[in-house]
Amino acid sequence: MTTDTTQAALAAFSALLGPGGLKTAPEDTAPFLREWRDLYQGTTPGVLLPQSTEAVSAIMKVASEHGVPIVPQGGNTGLVGGQIPDGTGREFVLSLTRMNRVRGVDGEGNTLTVEAGLTLQGAQEAAESVDRLFPLSLGSEGSCTIGGNLSTNAGGTAVLAYGNARDLVLGLEVVLADGRIWSGLSSLRKDNTGYDLKQLFLGSEGTLGIITAAVLKLFPRPAERLAAFLAVPTPHEALALFNRARAAAGPQLTGFEIMPRIGVEFCLSHLPGARDPLETPSPWYVLMEWSAGTDTSAAESAFEALLEEAMEAGLVSDGALAASETQARAFWAMRHGMSEVQRHEGGSIKHDVSVPVARVPDFLDVATKAVLDMVPGCRPVPFGHLGDGNIHFNVSQPLGADKADYLALWDAMNARVHAIVQDFGGSISAEHGIGRLKRPLMADVKDGVSLDLMRSLKATFDPQGILNPGRVLPD
Amino acid sequence: MTTDTTQAALAAFSALLGPGGLKTAPEDTAPFLREWRDLYQGTTPGVLLPQSTEAVSAIMKVASEHGVPIVPQGGNTGLVGGQIPDGTGREFVLSLTRMNRVRGVDGEGNTLTVEAGLTLQGAQEAAESVDRLFPLSLGSEGSCTIGGNLSTNAGGTAVLAYGNARDLVLGLEVVLADGRIWSGLSSLRKDNTGYDLKQLFLGSEGTLGIITAAVLKLFPRPAERLAAFLAVPTPHEALALFNRARAAAGPQLTGFEIMPRIGVEFCLSHLPGARDPLETPSPWYVLMEWSAGTDTSAAESAFEALLEEAMEAGLVSDGALAASETQARAFWAMRHGMSEVQRHEGGSIKHDVSVPVARVPDFLDVATKAVLDMVPGCRPVPFGHLGDGNIHFNVSQPLGADKADYLALWDAMNARVHAIVQDFGGSISAEHGIGRLKRPLMADVKDGVSLDLMRSLKATFDPQGILNPGRVLPD
Repeated sequence: MTTDTTQAALAAFSALLGPGGLKTAPEDTAPFLREWRDLYQGTTPGVLLPQSTEAVSAIMKVASEHGVPIVPQGGNTGLVGGQIPDGTGREFVLSLTRMNRVRGVDGEGNTLTVEAGLTLQGAQEAAESVDRLFPLSLGSEGSCTIGGNLSTNAGGTAVLAYGNARDLVLGLEVVLADGRIWSGLSSLRKDNTGYDLKQLFLGSEGTLGIITAAVLKLFPRPAERLAAFLAVPTPHEALALFNRARAAAGPQLTGFEIMPRIGVEFCLSHLPGARDPLETPSPWYVLMEWSAGTDTSAAESAFEALLEEAMEAGLVSDGALAASETQARAFWAMRHGMSEVQRHEGGSIKHDVSVPVARVPDFLDVATKAVLDMVPGCRPVPFGHLGDGNIHFNVSQPLGADKADYLALWDAMNARVHAIVQDFGGSISAEHGIGRLKRPLMADVKDGVSLDLMRSLKATFDPQGILNPGRVLPD
Repeated sequence: MTTDTTQAALAAFSALLGPGGLKTAPEDTAPFLREWRDLYQGTTPGVLLPQSTEAVSAIMKVASEHGVPIVPQGGNTGLVGGQIPDGTGREFVLSLTRMNRVRGVDGEGNTLTVEAGLTLQGAQEAAESVDRLFPLSLGSEGSCTIGGNLSTNAGGTAVLAYGNARDLVLGLEVVLADGRIWSGLSSLRKDNTGYDLKQLFLGSEGTLGIITAAVLKLFPRPAERLAAFLAVPTPHEALALFNRARAAAGPQLTGFEIMPRIGVEFCLSHLPGARDPLETPSPWYVLMEWSAGTDTSAAESAFEALLEEAMEAGLVSDGALAASETQARAFWAMRHGMSEVQRHEGGSIKHDVSVPVARVPDFLDVATKAVLDMVPGCRPVPFGHLGDGNIHFNVSQPLGADKADYLALWDAMNARVHAIVQDFGGSISAEHGIGRLKRPLMADVKDGVSLDLMRSLKATFDPQGILNPGRVLPD
């Protein structure tokens, strides 16, 4: 690739998009070139800002003609560097943020058709406008986009009842590497006419095609969400409680998050307005949510009966039922703040991992011991989606340690924890994806046949390797 | 392909499988060569009956070495001819029925690991053995197999709450065209490490690989299933009732089937033991099911409140609540018998179609008028999964008409109805798949980009074209 090639592509993009659709000045491109934690920073010949699927198609035709790499970007909230160009200055950024229309919302049919650049919150609000729920929920929902959510198969706190992002999609519109448009905006619940092509583009992080629009599934809005903050002795009791709650509530169990005491203490120290929901400290806590249909009193009595039984069985030692929507929000604020508050306690080495649900307690025992052996005094703050087997195994530095010295152990601690995850049949990226951050690990965690099949798919759908190159697949 | 090739492959298969694993005598192969409706009948040089994944792998190595076509077969209940060899005598049948072990069941982790040849009923029973539910439910569940269910992405009556077969899978083990084994038997709820390869093999009808085992999702067993048989004036009120029921029951609404009066009358005439659940005939009926968690009395009162409101709103004119499990089973027997009873009323021209849920009533109006215009006196019996938008639009012959003359209109009536389905943005194969029956229609109902992408996948995963050739994809 020569600078001439980049320049020729730039000229073609300029003719295509006009000044409003192409940014090259450093002050204009800067926001697209670094992510909020400053872990990744790149350079680009230009940021492309198309406003239509046809414009994305035209961009990819130019890109494939000139063989220039394209890095698709949504709300720029990704945590694995997939959306930030590298430092070569060759990678164009294709931002979908100007494609943010709601194309249609159908309450009776329970579908919502949106463009990729709409924020998740925008999609949630469009659903609410017809008294429906779009359940995907993430900390970054105000700025992350549907296109990014789908291309990374985002998780979040509603997976337990509603599934991952992949499960919330009925149809997709995708621009292929060669610029062709695949129009798969179906709103059907059942369609067995050949291969389910949309699955290829969901979760493939923009390496097989660029999602430009989607038909999403909507759900009834729960009449009420009952929340309880519960003290449990260990994760083993939390797991038993989970199975009991699921038997009682079935799919109305819409949240089941686990948190350690230290995480709650971090929130009490650093989260404005946070207060301890329970009088007596407990080593572990569960935040449980039960969503009720129209008959809320029935759900309330069932929820209370469940909690009474759990206390009698010794699974729960204490608990607070949210008496109001405000209190429920306070419970959730503590859970959602648990990652951010660790920043105030020095360095934190992070792992977004999953294991089979029934093995979470044993995994926590083994992994906690391993990191304490490795760094005596370190402070594990494992929390997250117990009901999905997905733990954010974050480890804060020892009190008084040097932050840089501690963070220098990142790779070594990752290796130790990931090896344990592998022993437990788990995943080293439960919901954040691979991007650039975890790409070097792929060869270790995937078998040869899987890697071969993935490479075959990449070669089939992007033979020139211009779609988000250097992400996901190892060389 | 020469007879020599077939003979050489046969000799290799014989050495590999022994007499118990290879059937060539006509009396032994016959059951594998015709399906129960006698619509498809074929010939084969041999039926292969491996007992392990390694044996399937060895078979595919031989097959790819010799370039001989392999037709995978499960319980031989498919309705589109995908599992029956053609008449050339070149296609080997690979029956998975001797691979029928339960490899593991984990109630606490809510997973079930089974081999492809286990019957669906066997999987349901394995789930029950640990007090869990495997929700997939089909008329043929006593004989269809998990491998067939997954490779065709089966639907059935539980899709509304639990999804299609695709949605019930956590992991797969697959033998590829070249004999390599892809070991993807994950039991993780969340795993974003690269492309989700299992999606390729789910619903591709054995044309991209052979599913040999799967990890399935289990669910809590509902403490009680409440069933009601309800009279509704038209499908329009049925749709309004559906949305109201879904708002009230949320995901506890586990069944919502629509049936016309004529279908009930056919059952009363031909289904042993059937009796009319309601005193006064109604043009349409809904069979609704509400699954309760542990607190059954709460669900019962909520269910009754819903029905009262629906009657006050004029959506429901009459109804019967099942007073016992026996009565609930009688309601479902009528629904499950609705296809079979049509056999006693002469010829029936069938369509397994879907449209967006909110458009089902209008579709039924338009399609019913179209077939009556085409064949005055014909008797439409459209019934099925209203909540999924999936209608079995079956049309019985006029009273006294000649059956053969009527069935000669099959293709013409299909064309008329499928054109209407297309106008409504629907699918001509909602749950039965494409196989050989609907393959000639693929070029009409899929756009060129979709067909190109499907052909690319086929060429990538089965470059020799030996896996179920002549199925799904048009030439």
